[in-house]
Amino acid sequence: MYQVDLNCDLGESFGAYKIGMDEQILPLISSANIACGFHAADPMVMEKTTALAAANGIGMGAHPGFPDLQGFGRREMKLSPAEVKALIIYQIGALSAFVKAAGGSLQHVKPHGALYNMAGKDEKLAMAICEGIKAVDGSLIVLGQSGSRMEEAAKKLGLPFAKEVFADRAYEEDGSLVARSKPGAMIEDEEKAVSRVIRMIKEGKVQTITGKDIPIEADSVCVHGDGEKALKFVEKIRKELLKEKIEIVPLGKLSDRKGNA
Amino acid sequence: MYQVDLNCDLGESFGAYKIGMDEQILPLISSANIACGFHAADPMVMEKTTALAAANGIGMGAHPGFPDLQGFGRREMKLSPAEVKALIIYQIGALSAFVKAAGGSLQHVKPHGALYNMAGKDEKLAMAICEGIKAVDGSLIVLGQSGSRMEEAAKKLGLPFAKEVFADRAYEEDGSLVARSKPGAMIEDEEKAVSRVIRMIKEGKVQTITGKDIPIEADSVCVHGDGEKALKFVEKIRKELLKEKIEIVPLGKLSDRKGNA
Amino acid sequence: MYQVDLNCDLGESFGAYKIGMDEQILPLISSANIACGFHAADPMVMEKTTALAAANGIGMGAHPGFPDLQGFGRREMKLSPAEVKALIIYQIGALSAFVKAAGGSLQHVKPHGALYNMAGKDEKLAMAICEGIKAVDGSLIVLGQSGSRMEEAAKKLGLPFAKEVFADRAYEEDGSLVARSKPGAMIEDEEKAVSRVIRMIKEGKVQTITGKDIPIEADSVCVHGDGEKALKFVEKIRKELLKEKIEIVPLGKLSDRKGNA
Amino acid sequence: MYQVDLNCDLGESFGAYKIGMDEQILPLISSANIACGFHAADPMVMEKTTALAAANGIGMGAHPGFPDLQGFGRREMKLSPAEVKALIIYQIGALSAFVKAAGGSLQHVKPHGALYNMAGKDEKLAMAICEGIKAVDGSLIVLGQSGSRMEEAAKKLGLPFAKEVFADRAYEEDGSLVARSKPGAMIEDEEKAVSRVIRMIKEGKVQTITGKDIPIEADSVCVHGDGEKALKFVEKIRKELLKEKIEIVPLGKLSDRKGNA
Repeated sequence: MYQVDLNCDLGESFGAYKIGMDEQILPLISSANIACGFHAADPMVMEKTTALAAANGIGMGAHPGFPDLQGFGRREMKLSPAEVKALIIYQIGALSAFVKAAGGSLQHVKPHGALYNMAGKDEKLAMAICEGIKAVDGSLIVLGQSGSRMEEAAKKLGLPFAKEVFADRAYEEDGSLVARSKPGAMIEDEEKAVSRVIRMIKEGKVQTITGKDIPIEADSVCVHGDGEKALKFVEKIRKELLKEKIEIVPLGKLSDRKGNA
Repeated sequence: MYQVDLNCDLGESFGAYKIGMDEQILPLISSANIACGFHAADPMVMEKTTALAAANGIGMGAHPGFPDLQGFGRREMKLSPAEVKALIIYQIGALSAFVKAAGGSLQHVKPHGALYNMAGKDEKLAMAICEGIKAVDGSLIVLGQSGSRMEEAAKKLGLPFAKEVFADRAYEEDGSLVARSKPGAMIEDEEKAVSRVIRMIKEGKVQTITGKDIPIEADSVCVHGDGEKALKFVEKIRKELLKEKIEIVPLGKLSDRKGNA
Repeated sequence: MYQVDLNCDLGESFGAYKIGMDEQILPLISSANIACGFHAADPMVMEKTTALAAANGIGMGAHPGFPDLQGFGRREMKLSPAEVKALIIYQIGALSAFVKAAGGSLQHVKPHGALYNMAGKDEKLAMAICEGIKAVDGSLIVLGQSGSRMEEAAKKLGLPFAKEVFADRAYEEDGSLVARSKPGAMIEDEEKAVSRVIRMIKEGKVQTITGKDIPIEADSVCVHGDGEKALKFVEKIRKELLKEKIEIVPLGKLSDRKGNA
Repeated sequence: MYQVDLNCDLGESFGAYKIGMDEQILPLISSANIACGFHAADPMVMEKTTALAAANGIGMGAHPGFPDLQGFGRREMKLSPAEVKALIIYQIGALSAFVKAAGGSLQHVKPHGALYNMAGKDEKLAMAICEGIKAVDGSLIVLGQSGSRMEEAAKKLGLPFAKEVFADRAYEEDGSLVARSKPGAMIEDEEKAVSRVIRMIKEGKVQTITGKDIPIEADSVCVHGDGEKALKFVEKIRKELLKEKIEIVPLGKLSDRKGNA
């Protein structure tokens, strides 16, 4: 029996400002990366989001980001490792309290935006993040890309790791994502995107942008909930996965997590 | 054997900005109210403060405040009870993570500044705060004034409560503090301030501004660490308490907490 | 020939967060109250909004608010008059620079949200706001309600004042707005709302919630652009005003401003 | 007759947090770079600082920085040129209003911290800053380092430029500052620092870290006011300059500004 997790960013509204279609996406996914009040969200939004996620039986993860609401955490900031470690502890702690209040327990941590991208390539940053996670709870699953500095850091510190794949992104031969600036970086064809994901799960392979097959492991597929089109795609991928007898389960309930094989 | 706790606000620096003499005050007190990043502090400051407090064996408490760094949490804000509950959960959660990372466990919660003052008189606000505390951890001690709405709310929700007294403030006949705007509100004479505190602890009485004796119970004495003069006074009160065979112990270790008698 | 201004809040988006339908409302109004980065907006949004307003020949006004993005400036904050004066100067200055960069000049100032409501009733707050306005430019028109503390303060300081009316709100006999919490506070019937506005302009009268006619003067009608329904109403009121030969002109170009009669 | 300006960062306090010795440094300098509320300062601080500077006859400059109070504007942020241009307009506008309210007029603009350092080396960033300055007021003097991208950008856009030198820093042969991480980067010896500055002004030369003399022009010397030691040094340099018949005048009053020779 195949299994996979579907993860999506959630709870990114702020005050009077609304982003995302959280109520609609929740029944379709199995894990949520929940904003922690730095790049998005406020305490009210976090309370509502964790309550909704708990009610839907979704695996809850912290989605810590840079302290940059105006830039939505997408602008690079040059922080010291000590600063990064501390902001990770802070954000995980804040979210954990809401998760606990909602009657659940925190499942995973996935850094957001620029922090995710930078940490994938920067060993010191990845270590700072993982040290922050470990300082709060060494059983939290780190969600990241296979072969990234985050995977290395998680393993070095003995943290559980889960491998994330992207349905809508092309891959290089080394398993990294094709930069968005390059032609062909995005998989626009939805049929193709779905069949690529199914192949990743069942065969453990993906065709790179150069046409070559490479091995790939998928614990979780990253999906989006920020528009009607994105929502339709998640409905589609969900239906196709189930048709292929691939069970959709939260990260923490995968019977065989590849990130820790 | 008499016992009392000495509590002080701590960890109120922010980024390049320094407030307080944390290193010097720490060896003199038994409990710290630690800022949580809304009215003061940032993740780095919180990490450092909890580490210092843990190293000194100090009882650690969350000191949540209004989201108003510019006003240092001293300006009244009219928030809904739901907003207040959520910001309490958030700040307790954030601080708890650092407390845990420092190897300790959170002892108490004391609201800060305008939030403390407003909640003492506003039943809905007091309930919102206590509901937030309970949602995170029902064993956290609420630190507040005897006879305040906070005491009522804590008792209504079954939260442990500790009674706080002030060495440098005059009392009205109903046990409330004399408003700072009134003459005689502050006890300027240090000798007098100390002997008042000792009497509160040993006799359970204090002389009000009108000259009448009223009963008062003291689990904890609120002291300050924001200047040389304040520091000297804490040294003095500490010495005098010990001379009177009054043991100084963290809130959580009082053998007989009056707030829950 | 009758004249009136239509004013609307504009430029309230922030970073990745979008609020309002600025592009659609702009051709329908004559004056814009532009957010200044405290309760809403950021520098990019302000630059875009002033450029749009200038291109549409709209009278531009500063819309300063409390420093409370999370509460969208709708939560009361208790600031000192000195703090309020300073935040008014700051926000007018920041917006003025964008207005100037867009080739225009600032026309008016209208406080936002809780600040507007509080200042209408609080003399000290109203004076603080008007002192801030005067400190930057004594020729700026203050936009507010007739009979409010803001009108008094503006007159006391010699600032030009313009009288604002509300199409969708019921009035008390003293000319103040019926509190939103009371039944009948909102004029839901669009036909009625429009005919009330026309009568205010042509006859200088409005029927209060008690059924009595009172005198009222209208330099500007406050409209909203935060949804399809609001937009349709502005289209309607605009069409009906023009049908009645009421010219729609920016505040600064009214030939006979009633607030300074 | 020789002339030079002494410039110093000012007005960097925030709310309850105090940084700098503004009152003491003001009588010693001729130009102030005043924080604008992003990396430091708030409206109250800006009002007080501009009033003090005006009372002392000091040339007032905007000191815009990254929107990063926690990092004091010292942490690099990767913003788009459009974002940078907009935040420059915003901050200059905000400060200008206080300068005007204080009865003065804005003299110059000097970017702060990481923004200053990045813009010195990054052409696009320098152009974005200078475009922001020009959009507000093309007569504002840009204060920066000779040979930097800022100088090039200012000249390209026709903005007046003033050349800044550092008393306490060593120079490379190309006229750039020796990186702080290198040994010998700081000129610790105060006598030496002063005599270097005097030589820069009178001979137009400085000895580089390699021992070679290079030409250098000084419109303004950057000094610091953040401690007793810094203050003493400014007193010393001021005394020595006057002894050498070098007049200390604000940037805007230099009879022969080298940056525009």
